[in-house]
Amino acid sequence: MNALTTQLDEAGNLKHFLTIEGLERSLLIDILDRAEGFLGVAQQAVKKVPLCRGKVIANLFFENSTRTRTTFELAAKRLSADVLNLNISTSATAKGETLLDTLRNLEAMHVDMFVVRHATSGAAHFIAQHAAPHVSVVNAGDGRHSHPTQAMLDMFTIRRHKGDFSALRVAIVGDILHSRVARSQILALNTLGAAEVRVIGPRTLIPADAAEALGVRVFHDLREGVRDVDVVIMLRLQRERMSSALLPSEHEYFQLFGLTEERLATAHAEAIVMHPGPINRGVEMDSQVADGKRSVILEQVSNGIAVRMAVMSMCIGTQNLQAQQAGEQRDAH
Amino acid sequence: MNALTTQLDEAGNLKHFLTIEGLERSLLIDILDRAEGFLGVAQQAVKKVPLCRGKVIANLFFENSTRTRTTFELAAKRLSADVLNLNISTSATAKGETLLDTLRNLEAMHVDMFVVRHATSGAAHFIAQHAAPHVSVVNAGDGRHSHPTQAMLDMFTIRRHKGDFSALRVAIVGDILHSRVARSQILALNTLGAAEVRVIGPRTLIPADAAEALGVRVFHDLREGVRDVDVVIMLRLQRERMSSALLPSEHEYFQLFGLTEERLATAHAEAIVMHPGPINRGVEMDSQVADGKRSVILEQVSNGIAVRMAVMSMCIGTQNLQAQQAGEQRDAH
Amino acid sequence: MNALTTQLDEAGNLKHFLTIEGLERSLLIDILDRAEGFLGVAQQAVKKVPLCRGKVIANLFFENSTRTRTTFELAAKRLSADVLNLNISTSATAKGETLLDTLRNLEAMHVDMFVVRHATSGAAHFIAQHAAPHVSVVNAGDGRHSHPTQAMLDMFTIRRHKGDFSALRVAIVGDILHSRVARSQILALNTLGAAEVRVIGPRTLIPADAAEALGVRVFHDLREGVRDVDVVIMLRLQRERMSSALLPSEHEYFQLFGLTEERLATAHAEAIVMHPGPINRGVEMDSQVADGKRSVILEQVSNGIAVRMAVMSMCIGTQNLQAQQAGEQRDAH
Repeated sequence: MNALTTQLDEAGNLKHFLTIEGLERSLLIDILDRAEGFLGVAQQAVKKVPLCRGKVIANLFFENSTRTRTTFELAAKRLSADVLNLNISTSATAKGETLLDTLRNLEAMHVDMFVVRHATSGAAHFIAQHAAPHVSVVNAGDGRHSHPTQAMLDMFTIRRHKGDFSALRVAIVGDILHSRVARSQILALNTLGAAEVRVIGPRTLIPADAAEALGVRVFHDLREGVRDVDVVIMLRLQRERMSSALLPSEHEYFQLFGLTEERLATAHAEAIVMHPGPINRGVEMDSQVADGKRSVILEQVSNGIAVRMAVMSMCIGTQNLQAQQAGEQRDAH
Repeated sequence: MNALTTQLDEAGNLKHFLTIEGLERSLLIDILDRAEGFLGVAQQAVKKVPLCRGKVIANLFFENSTRTRTTFELAAKRLSADVLNLNISTSATAKGETLLDTLRNLEAMHVDMFVVRHATSGAAHFIAQHAAPHVSVVNAGDGRHSHPTQAMLDMFTIRRHKGDFSALRVAIVGDILHSRVARSQILALNTLGAAEVRVIGPRTLIPADAAEALGVRVFHDLREGVRDVDVVIMLRLQRERMSSALLPSEHEYFQLFGLTEERLATAHAEAIVMHPGPINRGVEMDSQVADGKRSVILEQVSNGIAVRMAVMSMCIGTQNLQAQQAGEQRDAH
Repeated sequence: MNALTTQLDEAGNLKHFLTIEGLERSLLIDILDRAEGFLGVAQQAVKKVPLCRGKVIANLFFENSTRTRTTFELAAKRLSADVLNLNISTSATAKGETLLDTLRNLEAMHVDMFVVRHATSGAAHFIAQHAAPHVSVVNAGDGRHSHPTQAMLDMFTIRRHKGDFSALRVAIVGDILHSRVARSQILALNTLGAAEVRVIGPRTLIPADAAEALGVRVFHDLREGVRDVDVVIMLRLQRERMSSALLPSEHEYFQLFGLTEERLATAHAEAIVMHPGPINRGVEMDSQVADGKRSVILEQVSNGIAVRMAVMSMCIGTQNLQAQQAGEQRDAH
């Protein structure tokens, strides 16, 4: 089963959101447009819309991430859904239950959506392929593979600042090799028709075939790489890489690939700086950049809730449509 | 104070739900009938009824059980109640507070219901006996004693498949000696008038006086025990029994008491297979049975939410009645 | 920045609630009056008012306290707010994120209020000083400094039993030196015009300059100290003090400063006994007093929810006013 089949129903509606791969430009634009409509909800006195009232959304976090879980929880609550937080590693599996038995049980409890975070690439796909027809799956990050809601909130943030993608040069800086965020961003930028996507990092952290395989230009020099770009996306450096001989010390990394105002001098005068958070200050960038006028890092966080509301309500909407059609078919017989 | 007095108010309404013992057939039927009405809530677009809106239900889990806690939490949310999850072992008692002080404090916060899970037999009764008049207690499993909502969801599942209980032969297989689930099931089956209740297991795991004390037929051979039965209920094997010399290895247990299609050959052609979950596949049964056409294991999970909604709303209804009567008495003076 | 500036907006409305220090008598009375109005909510069939519907209140507990967190959570839910429980020590800071970055992120998620518990004195002030304009901060206890909602629920309880403060003698017994509760109570009692505030305890646990610095009368003898008082407030003894040579054994402490009916003989005949909980029975007081007719300890718990509803809804009300005024200013341009 390919990714496309898994994510869309027969009419092309979004049923699961697992990866950017295989999704058409029009669908990505649809997500961005809907998220635009949800941005205002956060400004209302009552920050709620009733789109998912009575639905149950279960956060299945096999890998701990308070920040990502919190944004999904807030997005679900703003859609008026009920939220179940399940820390899987400490519950069912401790009793020796298999993952599929856990899923079957949650489905039997009429959970409507699983938001899945897992350290293994492909985990969200696996769950979507085995989930009951009435359940949607949203990938909140799987191994090195994909983090599609992060990529979409980044696209949303870029579009709000830069408008059309077709003229944009975007640079992604850091550990491209291990980053699910970078993979999803590159796919999204290319699908949305960005003029040029660049990756910048040490040779040890960029795949050897990146240029052809990912459709990007590769740079190993930061100053060179950010020349004339409109957007600089910094990746979070996973500190566990430090000890694995792939990376020099944090200090040395900052000397080569840490973003400073001075090193941004060659970028477009209006270039924005992004980071998925949490920032390692003094490693990926200095505080002057992180807190400076180019930084849109906190906007990314706000936008993340609107984008997640869009994705979740689209998936639940597809379910409602299927249930309605099934009802009509029954009535016709 | 006997169990009956503790559970019912003076008019015979359910105030607490602690044990099947002492409850009349008509009350059990009432629970099953109400649960039938709640089954449909899970099929609604908005899976909510407002019966317990503004009520606070506290899950007091002294023993960890994500699965049971989750079904109670979902049942409470479908009744529109607010839910407090309190992991007692890591909170108040760590500060040296006594159990009764913890209860008094929660009562003072106007919590309406305690859902209690505890490793000690009698814990839920103790709490009900000491609870304030405005609080209901539901037993979510206490030691080896009782697990009445599990038994009622099993009865509910049996009735949906088999209708009337009076013609039914039901076999319960496994560690009868230590099982609160089995004790509650046997009481419920006998109260509901099942034709025959059998228990099947090794001599070390069936009480010596089971036949008289529990009102069951005892078998030590699986094939013999399931002959002509309509329902086979497998118990979960607690792995900690393995090391206690009461049980041989898991492999050896499966050879003697593990359910397979072949060993089910002597059962009624339409016999159903049940398990409270989570299943130890290859220990209590093989996957062919667990996932086969006789298995109603996942229906049990779905039914569990409806049955818990029934029990919780009945107890809260009794409270509302008491509050109303107290109000009328005040007004009359 | 002084405490007053931090807590009030320009019009003198409560924006944050960090300390009793600097607040005027009229504001404290306003809190007590509003709490009076919220007491009845707990008696309603539906224990809810819609004052904070759609608002998000985040419990930021850097120091574990299930009891305090639960009362804030219930208060928030009775105001119809959504609640986020964040155990900060195990989440963001584990990833090396700074406290300010965590705050900025939660603000970007449009959280409306932080309820802060922290082991360091001044933590809630620090957070309020750095919080975005749309966020309120409520101090749920910071180091040895302040626990203002506890003090206000104590004042509320005293007023319900004793009416006017101006004739009252109040004694606070125990470890005054390390107690944020005592500091806040003394400030509140003096602001509300209590006739006399006494502190009673061993010399090692009362600041040497207590009389002048705090405006209290100091006693080292319990019988002497409670003579003719209307209210006796017992502090919780932190057991970690035992090993620090500041205190004799628990048994010896009880012999000198433990409250018994007999030692209460010199107090006013109608004197009430209070304790913030959880009680160490047989250390601060015996069970006869804790459960006796003078004890209002469980009323304090109930009142705590009403008082927290008052404080939270006042802060959110100030925010709503600011947002409205900002909107009107925009419209005028």
